[in-house]
Amino acid sequence: MTDRAVQLLGYGSAFLTTTSFFPQAIKVLRTNETRGISLRMYLLFTLGVAGWGIYGWLNRDWPVFAANLITFPATAAILERKIKSLLNQRT
Amino acid sequence: MTDRAVQLLGYGSAFLTTTSFFPQAIKVLRTNETRGISLRMYLLFTLGVAGWGIYGWLNRDWPVFAANLITFPATAAILERKIKSLLNQRT
Repeated sequence: MTDRAVQLLGYGSAFLTTTSFFPQAIKVLRTNETRGISLRMYLLFTLGVAGWGIYGWLNRDWPVFAANLITFPATAAILERKIKSLLNQRT
Repeated sequence: MTDRAVQLLGYGSAFLTTTSFFPQAIKVLRTNETRGISLRMYLLFTLGVAGWGIYGWLNRDWPVFAANLITFPATAAILERKIKSLLNQRT
Protein backbone atom coordinates (compact mmCIF):
# COMPACT_ATOMS: atom_id res chain seq x y z
CA MET A 1 0.00 0.00 0.00
CA THR A 2 1.19 3.52 -0.69
CA ASP A 3 1.67 6.01 2.16
CA ARG A 4 -1.33 7.90 0.88
CA ALA A 5 -3.52 4.81 1.00
CA VAL A 6 -2.36 3.99 4.55
CA GLN A 7 -3.13 7.58 5.59
CA LEU A 8 -6.60 7.32 4.09
CA LEU A 9 -7.12 4.06 5.97
CA GLY A 10 -6.25 5.89 9.19
CA TYR A 11 -8.63 8.77 8.49
CA GLY A 12 -11.39 6.36 7.43
CA SER A 13 -10.97 4.31 10.60
CA ALA A 14 -10.94 7.45 12.75
CA PHE A 15 -14.15 8.59 11.08
CA LEU A 16 -15.85 5.23 11.72
CA THR A 17 -14.88 4.84 15.38
CA THR A 18 -15.57 8.51 16.15
CA THR A 19 -19.01 8.69 14.58
CA SER A 20 -20.18 5.21 15.61
CA PHE A 21 -21.40 6.42 19.00
CA PHE A 22 -23.96 8.76 17.45
CA PRO A 23 -26.39 6.08 16.21
CA GLN A 24 -26.21 4.49 19.68
CA ALA A 25 -26.83 7.82 21.42
CA ILE A 26 -29.75 8.62 19.09
CA LYS A 27 -31.24 5.17 19.73
CA VAL A 28 -30.98 5.58 23.50
CA LEU A 29 -32.36 9.13 23.48
CA ARG A 30 -35.29 8.10 21.26
CA THR A 31 -36.26 4.81 22.85
CA ASN A 32 -34.99 5.17 26.44
CA GLU A 33 -34.17 1.46 26.09
CA THR A 34 -31.05 1.12 28.25
CA ARG A 35 -31.42 -2.35 29.74
CA GLY A 36 -28.88 -3.85 27.32
CA ILE A 37 -26.47 -0.93 27.81
CA SER A 38 -23.56 -1.62 30.17
CA LEU A 39 -23.15 1.04 32.87
CA ARG A 40 -19.53 -0.04 33.38
CA MET A 41 -18.71 0.32 29.71
CA TYR A 42 -20.00 3.89 29.56
CA LEU A 43 -18.37 4.89 32.85
CA LEU A 44 -14.99 3.63 31.60
CA PHE A 45 -15.42 4.88 28.06
CA THR A 46 -16.68 8.37 28.95
CA LEU A 47 -13.85 8.83 31.44
CA GLY A 48 -11.37 7.53 28.83
CA VAL A 49 -12.66 9.90 26.13
CA ALA A 50 -12.40 12.84 28.55
CA GLY A 51 -8.83 11.75 29.39
CA TRP A 52 -7.91 11.50 25.68
CA GLY A 53 -9.40 14.92 25.04
CA ILE A 54 -7.27 16.48 27.81
CA TYR A 55 -4.23 14.54 26.57
CA GLY A 56 -4.77 15.90 23.03
CA TRP A 57 -5.21 19.42 24.39
CA LEU A 58 -2.06 19.29 26.54
CA ASN A 59 -0.01 17.85 23.66
CA ARG A 60 -1.53 20.25 21.15
CA ASP A 61 -2.41 17.10 19.19
CA TRP A 62 -5.51 18.48 17.49
CA PRO A 63 -6.68 15.33 15.69
CA VAL A 64 -6.72 13.47 19.04
CA PHE A 65 -8.40 16.43 20.75
CA ALA A 66 -11.01 16.84 17.98
CA ALA A 67 -11.90 13.14 17.70
CA ASN A 68 -12.55 12.91 21.42
CA LEU A 69 -14.36 16.23 21.59
CA ILE A 70 -16.75 14.92 18.94
CA THR A 71 -17.33 11.57 20.66
CA PHE A 72 -17.76 13.02 24.15
CA PRO A 73 -21.35 14.34 23.93
CA ALA A 74 -22.56 11.04 22.43
CA THR A 75 -21.01 8.79 25.08
CA ALA A 76 -21.93 11.22 27.89
CA ALA A 77 -25.58 11.27 26.73
CA ILE A 78 -25.72 7.45 26.76
CA LEU A 79 -24.16 7.35 30.24
CA GLU A 80 -26.56 9.99 31.54
CA ARG A 81 -29.64 8.10 30.30
CA LYS A 82 -28.35 4.83 31.70
CA ILE A 83 -27.76 6.36 35.14
CA LYS A 84 -31.17 8.06 35.05
CA SER A 85 -32.97 4.84 34.21
CA LEU A 86 -31.14 2.99 37.01
CA LEU A 87 -32.12 5.73 39.49
CA ASN A 88 -35.74 5.62 38.30
CA GLN A 89 -35.88 1.86 38.83
CA ARG A 90 -35.03 2.32 42.47
CA THR A 91 -37.78 4.78 43.26
CA MET B 1 1.77 18.96 33.97
CA THR B 2 5.09 17.20 33.45
CA ASP B 3 5.72 15.18 30.29
CA ARG B 4 5.62 12.04 32.41
CA ALA B 5 2.20 12.95 33.82
CA VAL B 6 0.85 13.67 30.33
CA GLN B 7 2.19 10.32 29.12
CA LEU B 8 0.53 8.54 32.03
CA LEU B 9 -2.74 10.33 31.18
CA GLY B 10 -2.44 8.95 27.64
CA TYR B 11 -1.79 5.41 28.81
CA GLY B 12 -4.58 5.62 31.37
CA SER B 13 -7.05 6.89 28.76
CA ALA B 14 -5.97 4.18 26.31
CA PHE B 15 -6.51 1.56 29.00
CA LEU B 16 -10.01 2.88 29.78
CA THR B 17 -11.29 3.16 26.21
CA THR B 18 -9.70 -0.16 25.17
CA THR B 19 -11.06 -2.23 28.05
CA SER B 20 -14.47 -0.54 28.27
CA PHE B 21 -15.97 -2.82 25.62
CA PHE B 22 -15.41 -5.92 27.72
CA PRO B 23 -18.10 -5.26 30.34
CA GLN B 24 -20.54 -4.56 27.48
CA ALA B 25 -19.55 -7.75 25.65
CA ILE B 26 -19.85 -9.81 28.85
CA LYS B 27 -23.28 -8.31 29.54
CA VAL B 28 -24.53 -9.08 26.04
CA LEU B 29 -23.10 -12.63 26.04
CA ARG B 30 -24.62 -13.35 29.48
CA THR B 31 -28.04 -11.81 29.07
CA ASN B 32 -28.60 -11.86 25.29
CA GLU B 33 -30.30 -8.50 25.89
CA THR B 34 -29.52 -6.64 22.67
CA ARG B 35 -32.64 -4.52 22.13
CA GLY B 36 -30.94 -1.36 23.37
CA ILE B 37 -27.77 -2.10 21.38
CA SER B 38 -27.41 -0.12 18.15
CA LEU B 39 -26.66 -2.31 15.12
CA ARG B 40 -25.30 0.72 13.25
CA MET B 41 -22.93 1.60 16.07
CA TYR B 42 -21.39 -1.86 16.14
CA LEU B 43 -21.19 -2.13 12.35
CA LEU B 44 -19.30 1.17 12.18
CA PHE B 45 -17.21 0.59 15.28
CA THR B 46 -16.16 -2.99 14.45
CA LEU B 47 -15.19 -1.95 10.93
CA GLY B 48 -13.30 1.05 12.34
CA VAL B 49 -11.40 -1.06 14.87
CA ALA B 50 -10.43 -3.53 12.12
CA GLY B 51 -9.25 -0.58 10.01
CA TRP B 52 -7.21 0.84 12.90
CA GLY B 53 -5.65 -2.57 13.51
CA ILE B 54 -4.56 -2.86 9.88
CA TYR B 55 -3.33 0.75 9.97
CA GLY B 56 -1.23 -0.01 13.06
CA TRP B 57 0.15 -3.16 11.46
CA LEU B 58 1.08 -1.41 8.20
CA ASN B 59 2.73 1.48 10.06
CA ARG B 60 4.43 -0.87 12.54
CA ASP B 61 2.72 1.27 15.18
CA TRP B 62 2.41 -1.45 17.81
CA PRO B 63 0.45 0.48 20.47
CA VAL B 64 -2.24 1.27 17.87
CA PHE B 65 -2.15 -2.31 16.59
CA ALA B 66 -2.31 -3.81 20.11
CA ALA B 67 -5.12 -1.57 21.39
CA ASN B 68 -7.33 -2.45 18.44
CA LEU B 69 -6.41 -6.12 18.51
CA ILE B 70 -7.58 -6.21 22.15
CA THR B 71 -10.85 -4.37 21.47
CA PHE B 72 -11.74 -6.33 18.32
CA PRO B 73 -13.04 -9.57 19.88
CA ALA B 74 -15.26 -7.62 22.31
CA THR B 75 -16.89 -5.41 19.69
CA ALA B 76 -17.16 -8.30 17.19
CA ALA B 77 -18.91 -10.46 19.81
CA ILE B 78 -21.46 -7.69 20.53
CA LEU B 79 -22.08 -7.23 16.79
CA GLU B 80 -22.48 -10.97 16.23
CA ARG B 81 -25.07 -11.31 19.02
CA LYS B 82 -26.99 -8.28 17.79
CA ILE B 83 -27.15 -9.66 14.23
CA LYS B 84 -28.17 -13.10 15.53
CA SER B 85 -30.99 -11.68 17.61
CA LEU B 86 -32.26 -9.61 14.67
CA LEU B 87 -32.22 -12.71 12.44
CA ASN B 88 -34.03 -14.75 15.10
CA GLN B 89 -36.76 -12.13 15.36
CA ARG B 90 -37.53 -12.55 11.70
CA THR B 91 -38.02 -16.32 11.75
